[in-house]
Amino acid sequence: MTQPTTPLSAVDLAEALIACPSVTPATGLVFDCLEAQLAPLGFTVHRTLDGAAPDGPVENLFAVRRGPPGSRHFAFAGHLDVVPPGEGWTSAPFLPERRGDLLYGRGAVDMKGAIAAMVAAAAQVPTAAGTLSFLITGDEEGVATHGTVALIEHLRAAGEQPDLCLVGEPTSVNRLGDMAKIGRRGSVNIWIEVAGREGHVAYPHLADNPVPRLVALLAELDALVLDEGTDWFQPSNLEITELVVGNPATNVIPPKASARLSIRFNDRHTGASLAALVDAVAQRHGGTTRPVISGEAFLTEPGDFSALLVAAVEAETGVTPELSTTGGTSDARFLKAVCPVIEFGLCNATMHKRDEAVALADLDTLARIYARVAKAALVVDAHAT
Amino acid sequence: MTQPTTPLSAVDLAEALIACPSVTPATGLVFDCLEAQLAPLGFTVHRTLDGAAPDGPVENLFAVRRGPPGSRHFAFAGHLDVVPPGEGWTSAPFLPERRGDLLYGRGAVDMKGAIAAMVAAAAQVPTAAGTLSFLITGDEEGVATHGTVALIEHLRAAGEQPDLCLVGEPTSVNRLGDMAKIGRRGSVNIWIEVAGREGHVAYPHLADNPVPRLVALLAELDALVLDEGTDWFQPSNLEITELVVGNPATNVIPPKASARLSIRFNDRHTGASLAALVDAVAQRHGGTTRPVISGEAFLTEPGDFSALLVAAVEAETGVTPELSTTGGTSDARFLKAVCPVIEFGLCNATMHKRDEAVALADLDTLARIYARVAKAALVVDAHAT
Ligand SMILES: [Zn+2]
Ligand SMILES: [Zn+2]
Repeated sequence: MTQPTTPLSAVDLAEALIACPSVTPATGLVFDCLEAQLAPLGFTVHRTLDGAAPDGPVENLFAVRRGPPGSRHFAFAGHLDVVPPGEGWTSAPFLPERRGDLLYGRGAVDMKGAIAAMVAAAAQVPTAAGTLSFLITGDEEGVATHGTVALIEHLRAAGEQPDLCLVGEPTSVNRLGDMAKIGRRGSVNIWIEVAGREGHVAYPHLADNPVPRLVALLAELDALVLDEGTDWFQPSNLEITELVVGNPATNVIPPKASARLSIRFNDRHTGASLAALVDAVAQRHGGTTRPVISGEAFLTEPGDFSALLVAAVEAETGVTPELSTTGGTSDARFLKAVCPVIEFGLCNATMHKRDEAVALADLDTLARIYARVAKAALVVDAHAT
Repeated sequence: MTQPTTPLSAVDLAEALIACPSVTPATGLVFDCLEAQLAPLGFTVHRTLDGAAPDGPVENLFAVRRGPPGSRHFAFAGHLDVVPPGEGWTSAPFLPERRGDLLYGRGAVDMKGAIAAMVAAAAQVPTAAGTLSFLITGDEEGVATHGTVALIEHLRAAGEQPDLCLVGEPTSVNRLGDMAKIGRRGSVNIWIEVAGREGHVAYPHLADNPVPRLVALLAELDALVLDEGTDWFQPSNLEITELVVGNPATNVIPPKASARLSIRFNDRHTGASLAALVDAVAQRHGGTTRPVISGEAFLTEPGDFSALLVAAVEAETGVTPELSTTGGTSDARFLKAVCPVIEFGLCNATMHKRDEAVALADLDTLARIYARVAKAALVVDAHAT
């Protein structure tokens, strides 16, 4: 296996990926582009189309470059799909453009830039160091039904078992390196409905207004303290995000009333345990519930893995990353079932916004950080993390 | 002034009125018909068109037959407009049809039948007994903006001052005579809005969810005991009739939340006092309110007026009417400002429904009751009621 004589440029690689439009769910061109970048580095590329309309088809890619027999396996994970560009861009969102110190384009930070840095990093890791792989989906920004979940099934079917995995989501906040994510909260949405009996407001004894029961139920839920937080997580949080009665008639007692909750929870809970808790409260007030669990909480407790990441970031930036569990969900919620997973990537200030942009220098720095992480991860004892 | 030699038939008069379509707001034909019935009885008929689109124009009629100078003045009040007939009638709603013992047609009980009975009753009251008048509007079933309110203004401008007034709403329930209304509750609808700051559920500290404040506010309002009722009124009642957030996004904390209340209240309160009470609670939770008062409560306390009505009903039917203050609002809420007012009329089982119908015998009986009431009212000391 030959190594390139001059380092691959993460900026060039990022430009090539951004130039392939890939609004979620993504297939085809953008994966052709990544395959063309990985194949010369010695990676064997497996691509699958998973799912069908309306949530698919989704393209998923598993690329692996095997180290010596028995060597450790480190995986880079991420997504090539992007959110729709929206209006008001200074330059065309899918025509990457360098202006000053920045590279503009949809996906620059979330997360084609990071994938480009992973490819550039892979070029710097000797094949003899161990097995390196890429787990790349085309459906992270969408419903994520046929993305990383399907990819993990393919991995299992093929007997592939990474020891550690790094997800390239844009976790940095003010400067590259200031934050990594060692966990994410789980998320569950719960619909609550209280039924009553319709009637005229002048004859309330002939009706049964469901609204006061819904109000009492929600007041009780709002007063719950789910937990006080943990060493690594902020307290779990419940928000009431919707109320619906839908009664245009001022003189009518409505037949039903409903609400929707969104709970972001730490590893003290599961989606199911919270659904049961809410259902018990709802039942006491005559309500029914319907939970939809978006993802469970995960935590990769600080240890060898986070230590080698921190060391790599400090070496390349002089910044010590905060190990955080804040923010929304990511595909790490699925990958945690495969092996320990940490997220680290570019600055997220412009993600999902118009004029999304990455500092050119950050792309090169991130490639060097990723290379350090991969090299270190291939020698660390994963089971000590 | 001549009296007809044979009694006018209330059934014939009712058929003539029903045959004039008069979905609210009503003008023209149905008033021509009533004028043609009243003029031969010696009434001077004044008709006005009040208001403009979209709530008007509305026709209002004041007809008066003056008694001897200084004599007392008794008024019959009611409305010639009807609610839309809707679908599914056995016979055409504006083609009155006698089938068996019943007369079918929109307005049969609410309240062309009662107005016909009033006309037949007037024919039985000697002119020498006192001043008799009709206060008839074409907008009771609609928004009632330009109906009885305008009619009362015309009365005042003309210096007319009835001593007692009987409204012919269908107050009977199971048989003619079983209930009269000596009062009605007032009604106020109040819109409540709580504003917050929109945000993502993953970052609640950057947002301000208005829903828990609305929920707390509504729980406090729902726990209020407005009163325990009075000798004549049931307790005032507050119903939450609508909740609105309108947030389709499960991961978004909404910027505002609102609710609507309907309060039916007795004479311990006014619309303004309740609006102030609700506003004070709302303000403590950061909410704002917008009240719309539909009508104030009124009560004609039992006395001479109710006694003469009860006597008239007992004499003609053998039934003692319950003196009630239940049910919705009526134009009596406006007329109470003019003089003591009581409501008494036909059975309300079919009002506002398809195949609205009145018993033929009830029309004649009601005419005799109304004649007894008018004769007695013209001698009673109104100021003792
Ligand atoms: Zn992303
Ligand atoms: Zn009516």
